Amino acid sequence: MTATAATQFGCEIYILERQHDFPAQSLDTHALVGDWNDAKWLLNLASLVDVVTLENEFVNTDALTELPQNGHRLWPTVDTIALVQDKLRQKHTFAGAGIPVPRCADAPTPEALVEFGFPAIAKQRRNSYDGKGNATLRSAFDVAPAWAKLEGHLNALYVEEFCSYTMELAVIITRGQDGAAACYPVVETINRDHICHVVKAPAAIPADVAAKATDIALRAVEAIGGVGSYGVELFSMPDGRLLVNEIAPRVHNTGHYTIEACVCSQFENHVRAVLGWPLGSPQMITPAACMVNLLGYHMGSGVPHGLSDAMAVPGAHIHVYGKTRSERGRKMGHVTALGQTIEEAYACAQRAADCIQFGGEL
Amino acid sequence: MTATAATQFGCEIYILERQHDFPAQSLDTHALVGDWNDAKWLLNLASLVDVVTLENEFVNTDALTELPQNGHRLWPTVDTIALVQDKLRQKHTFAGAGIPVPRCADAPTPEALVEFGFPAIAKQRRNSYDGKGNATLRSAFDVAPAWAKLEGHLNALYVEEFCSYTMELAVIITRGQDGAAACYPVVETINRDHICHVVKAPAAIPADVAAKATDIALRAVEAIGGVGSYGVELFSMPDGRLLVNEIAPRVHNTGHYTIEACVCSQFENHVRAVLGWPLGSPQMITPAACMVNLLGYHMGSGVPHGLSDAMAVPGAHIHVYGKTRSERGRKMGHVTALGQTIEEAYACAQRAADCIQFGGEL
Repeated sequence: MTATAATQFGCEIYILERQHDFPAQSLDTHALVGDWNDAKWLLNLASLVDVVTLENEFVNTDALTELPQNGHRLWPTVDTIALVQDKLRQKHTFAGAGIPVPRCADAPTPEALVEFGFPAIAKQRRNSYDGKGNATLRSAFDVAPAWAKLEGHLNALYVEEFCSYTMELAVIITRGQDGAAACYPVVETINRDHICHVVKAPAAIPADVAAKATDIALRAVEAIGGVGSYGVELFSMPDGRLLVNEIAPRVHNTGHYTIEACVCSQFENHVRAVLGWPLGSPQMITPAACMVNLLGYHMGSGVPHGLSDAMAVPGAHIHVYGKTRSERGRKMGHVTALGQTIEEAYACAQRAADCIQFGGEL
Repeated sequence: MTATAATQFGCEIYILERQHDFPAQSLDTHALVGDWNDAKWLLNLASLVDVVTLENEFVNTDALTELPQNGHRLWPTVDTIALVQDKLRQKHTFAGAGIPVPRCADAPTPEALVEFGFPAIAKQRRNSYDGKGNATLRSAFDVAPAWAKLEGHLNALYVEEFCSYTMELAVIITRGQDGAAACYPVVETINRDHICHVVKAPAAIPADVAAKATDIALRAVEAIGGVGSYGVELFSMPDGRLLVNEIAPRVHNTGHYTIEACVCSQFENHVRAVLGWPLGSPQMITPAACMVNLLGYHMGSGVPHGLSDAMAVPGAHIHVYGKTRSERGRKMGHVTALGQTIEEAYACAQRAADCIQFGGEL
């Protein structure tokens, strides 16, 4: 989707991916197939382009460092990526900047988990996403199984207070190289099994809460020196606090709705930011929008069933990513609908999404 | 832009073009470089895909015929293309279907031009576009120079009444394989030197005139058995008549505004139509929209000057086609803006377009 946005401006795009048949390949004549954790391949890529950007935050920062060291432009910077990759360091950075986060602590030993108190969540400091690398601790009885599950002897862990939030919120912020920022509306994200299922834009929250969430999200992106589009996830707590759950240093699933719903999408603004161009407006062009993810039902082909039925739903914007294989819970596409109300948009998007199935018979 | 729309659905796209570095190539891993008037190359392309479609109407129909003869799906059909390619046959087909067209006649000799009367326009029956292949006849004195200019001894010509229209209108119609149609709003097109400069959507005309234009456009697409997206150009005459000027059997410059301004763009609907999927809504999502073409200033690079300034215009959607070379009057990109009024949208799009220049210093 970033490549599509860049194509609108006549940009040439080069993509480095580990395997052939990656989703963006149908968009791109310039595919490099190689290991993006290998400095050699990163330098190959960088030598072909004006600017390098990332669509995942798990790239080895030692390898990435070679890009700026050899005079190549990289956004986000290695410092930003390194900071975000370590979730404890990310949280400490936010806390240090006065940004509210859940109470958390390093957990180098099982004893540290016990000392922190319950309920809590033990998390791997690195490489965890969509609930992978997390374990809930209700009492001391959960500590040993959690330590084993997360392989605490191999992985650095930390622990965080269990947040009984009333709503999960997210904000996309695009920040330019000059520090100017485009702040998208605060949205509600509805997760199941730690995976985003539905995004409702804007979130049904009072204007002052939305303003506070936006301010926190912007300060979070500033705190990590972010340039480009970022997804900031927040918990809305029963006592009125807003806590930053985490930040994604890239375009984010909670911002896919911006393609149809906003003047300038998170993808177009990411391209503008990394190329040093003025940012476009993040304003919605409709009172409400809703995005429903299309998740793989089980392992199988990445070609969906029911696409034609989904197309018959008026107003449904259907996106299929072209991934070759479906897996249970894998993000295979999404549907966005606009509306005068969230209910209208949600009903439309869900109706179309219900028609489509990946990796299984209907 | 059609390829981008198809990519949204996870389609694989193969493009046959005569030269490397064509605009859609940055979108496409599957580029065939060969002559699209050569049946061998067309069959090569067809063997790789489920459906073949065209983005220009000048493909040799004898070569195209081999596709259906060898069991390949082609939309539009060879019959539709053949009919449209001969502008006199096109007009006669419309007239035969009761669709109003300018008075016209075959012109196999200079005498036929004289007999037709003045003022009139002599036109090549084939391969003319954007005013190329046309000559205005004010009196008998103009006949010999027109015959020479249009090379009447080599090219079949016809002659048409000179239409002193009050407004040029256009309608995009997408028609499905089942005959269902999506009729986009009637727009006003402002041409200079026979080249589309500005499109205003919707046209500032009474509702009954718009309804009549839509009905005529739909009947024109039906008359040629069209499947896919079509641009129908009409003249609004001082006496209230609406005359079909011509039809383009493909996505059309007067429908580029539909990318941002309509629920489903002419490009997405073209993809849906040729793949046999239900059509999306052609409804506008905003009261008004305006598109301004970015034309080459003179010969030179296809990389624009002033892009960053244009990006700073709030609400301007900037499209650069990535053509490698600019020529005077060549369509290098376009800008679309939405608004509450046409004036607002036009001011925004024109302001951004004024920043951008191809092939020359500002």
